[in-house]
Amino acid sequence: MGTLEFNGQHYPDGRASDPGELGWMRGAPPPEDKRIAFESGNYRDFPQIRWSFSHMRELMPTLNVWRGRGAPSQFERSDMSAEIDALTFADMGGRIRRFEDALFDTYADGVVVLHRGRIVYERYFGALQPHLPHECQSCTKSYTGTLAAVLLHEGVLDESRLISHYLPELRGTAWEDATLRQVMDMQTGLAFREDYVDESSDIWAYRRAFGRLPRPSGYDGPRNSCDYLRTVRKQGMHGEFAYQSLNTQVLAWVMMRATGRSFVQLLQERLWAPLGCEEDGYVEVDPAGMPTAEGGLSATLRDFARFGEMMRCQGEWHGKQIVPESVVRDVQQGGRPAKLESGYSYRSQWWVSHNELSSFEARGIHGQRLYVAPKAEMVVALFASHPIADGAGDSITMPQLLALGRVLSA
Amino acid sequence: MGTLEFNGQHYPDGRASDPGELGWMRGAPPPEDKRIAFESGNYRDFPQIRWSFSHMRELMPTLNVWRGRGAPSQFERSDMSAEIDALTFADMGGRIRRFEDALFDTYADGVVVLHRGRIVYERYFGALQPHLPHECQSCTKSYTGTLAAVLLHEGVLDESRLISHYLPELRGTAWEDATLRQVMDMQTGLAFREDYVDESSDIWAYRRAFGRLPRPSGYDGPRNSCDYLRTVRKQGMHGEFAYQSLNTQVLAWVMMRATGRSFVQLLQERLWAPLGCEEDGYVEVDPAGMPTAEGGLSATLRDFARFGEMMRCQGEWHGKQIVPESVVRDVQQGGRPAKLESGYSYRSQWWVSHNELSSFEARGIHGQRLYVAPKAEMVVALFASHPIADGAGDSITMPQLLALGRVLSA
Repeated sequence: MGTLEFNGQHYPDGRASDPGELGWMRGAPPPEDKRIAFESGNYRDFPQIRWSFSHMRELMPTLNVWRGRGAPSQFERSDMSAEIDALTFADMGGRIRRFEDALFDTYADGVVVLHRGRIVYERYFGALQPHLPHECQSCTKSYTGTLAAVLLHEGVLDESRLISHYLPELRGTAWEDATLRQVMDMQTGLAFREDYVDESSDIWAYRRAFGRLPRPSGYDGPRNSCDYLRTVRKQGMHGEFAYQSLNTQVLAWVMMRATGRSFVQLLQERLWAPLGCEEDGYVEVDPAGMPTAEGGLSATLRDFARFGEMMRCQGEWHGKQIVPESVVRDVQQGGRPAKLESGYSYRSQWWVSHNELSSFEARGIHGQRLYVAPKAEMVVALFASHPIADGAGDSITMPQLLALGRVLSA
Repeated sequence: MGTLEFNGQHYPDGRASDPGELGWMRGAPPPEDKRIAFESGNYRDFPQIRWSFSHMRELMPTLNVWRGRGAPSQFERSDMSAEIDALTFADMGGRIRRFEDALFDTYADGVVVLHRGRIVYERYFGALQPHLPHECQSCTKSYTGTLAAVLLHEGVLDESRLISHYLPELRGTAWEDATLRQVMDMQTGLAFREDYVDESSDIWAYRRAFGRLPRPSGYDGPRNSCDYLRTVRKQGMHGEFAYQSLNTQVLAWVMMRATGRSFVQLLQERLWAPLGCEEDGYVEVDPAGMPTAEGGLSATLRDFARFGEMMRCQGEWHGKQIVPESVVRDVQQGGRPAKLESGYSYRSQWWVSHNELSSFEARGIHGQRLYVAPKAEMVVALFASHPIADGAGDSITMPQLLALGRVLSA
């Protein structure tokens, strides 16, 4: 048990912040000082997120992503736990760490490692259990982007079209003259500030409008996601990379308008059912019935891994082509510019590493990650509840997963 | 298409109020005048309930009732649709009706009829689909009562104990000197008025405290179910039948305290998993994490029918004793007094008819019903969204199910 320091503040580490040990939401009813609630807003505080990320549906309304009636698909297993736990690597600060210890130091809630499609490592920590869906945060975007790319491939959507073609109600907003491709690749100029640490930044206002954050009394802002999106104006030019979550929400809105299907139906029909997911997923929903598509999907760790494994196998899953091969290839080739400051590029809502493993990744705040590494024949599905939202644990997780990939590809 | 009259008001009938036809919650986003939302409170208006009873989780936070990992149990089928649809009977007003027409006139959302365990009839209307859980309303109570009776049988609970023995925090309330059995059989004297038509009655205040109804701005009442229950005082004597939903909430609270398990865990471990339910169920949850147990369970129609069939078979399900036979026998023998005004008696949260089919029933407002008729080897699971909450459609449904039972037992 110990503490860790981030930005000059001390936090209990992964072991010490275990929500079961701390008694969060235990008892009937839980003691007042151990309650996690939407109203009070404490569900997004640390260490409460160590519980709430596995219990989002208990805090807010949700849309079900039905798995369908088929039997769940099965994973073969070949256990490498001991070997992987003992693996050592140097983090970005040069400190040598054991794989297992690094999980506690990055507040992992669960990890599944697939090698050649087999589960070689599977661990759960804190409040997470194998059958419990966990908040994917912005990894949700990679689901949305993949579905959009499939619809492009099918000709249902046209990437060169302007958003206002699909959504006339966005005329006069930042998206009026943005193409669908610009939205998919986060290349829009929006007068919108997304800072998860600064509660005065626009993303917080958006989430209050959506209903994912409690509204102060007397609140008179927009009361659902579409009404909020209509208020966003252009700033600068389209065509340069700028990570803005609202683009993904617009993307899902376009998909729903063009197909006449809801986002959860698309997830179900295109991914959950064909992948043989084990459990239903769910998505947070706004007061007008619109789903979150930029965050807010909850899935079990294994179902998250299934999505990654299908992407690793060029869209194929257990002998069936679920996503066109060309869609996956296009993601893997990366976006433009070919290298952002981080060394990554961004394509269709995926982060593309251009590293020695050719990994591409779904990434979410607080440490969510789906790491698809074709050259290592590896997929890592990782859920976490790190106290720091942005880039949480990256200086550990990035070299950790690269080291694991090197071992598995050796 | 037509209208029906209740209490001097005209309502579109079952066909004319189909939420799909009316466009409720269709579109991305739905047009403003077709939205059903928690905030506005219109989710509990008619005809909106024809949609919302199949979509409660999209309106409020919920706890999952996990079905577990097993394959769903299967029903054999022998279709009697044509025969049953054409069945005629006289309603309580003496009017001759066809079975199928009566379903539309009582706003049925779905019906499953089991005869000797086989599905002989299965219909879905309006917003309900086979995989969608529907609000069970007070049929939830029969789940709660059955679980409590099982715990009595196992000696985990003692029916002669006072509630304050289990829940010391209810000292000073109406339940201080009520026995567990009195609570199970609705024999308490509470200063509490339960009138689903009169919004000034106490049940509305309770639901606002729970969070199942929107709270007016400036609301300063209790903010969760337990805090509300602590405010309820005794009125009159315990020992006489008085239907009060709060008793069921107290009963579930006792069960949770005594077992250290949550209500949803008990539902899962004792019923959902052993019955091989097809889909997860869910339960509405208050801001302190406490579940509804007096209403607020949503289950699929077939899973609802599974529960009834197990009760018909004296607690046995597919060769396994899930609920002790003596528990079911005790329910069937009925409560005291042996005959209430309606001719029914009430035992362990079930309505016992003492009719020629020896039927006993779970009953919920707006027409929910699980009708277990041992002498006809019949179970009818019925979900509805009748415009009138109390006794909705009883004058049709009661003779309808009796007539069906007579045919099946002939």
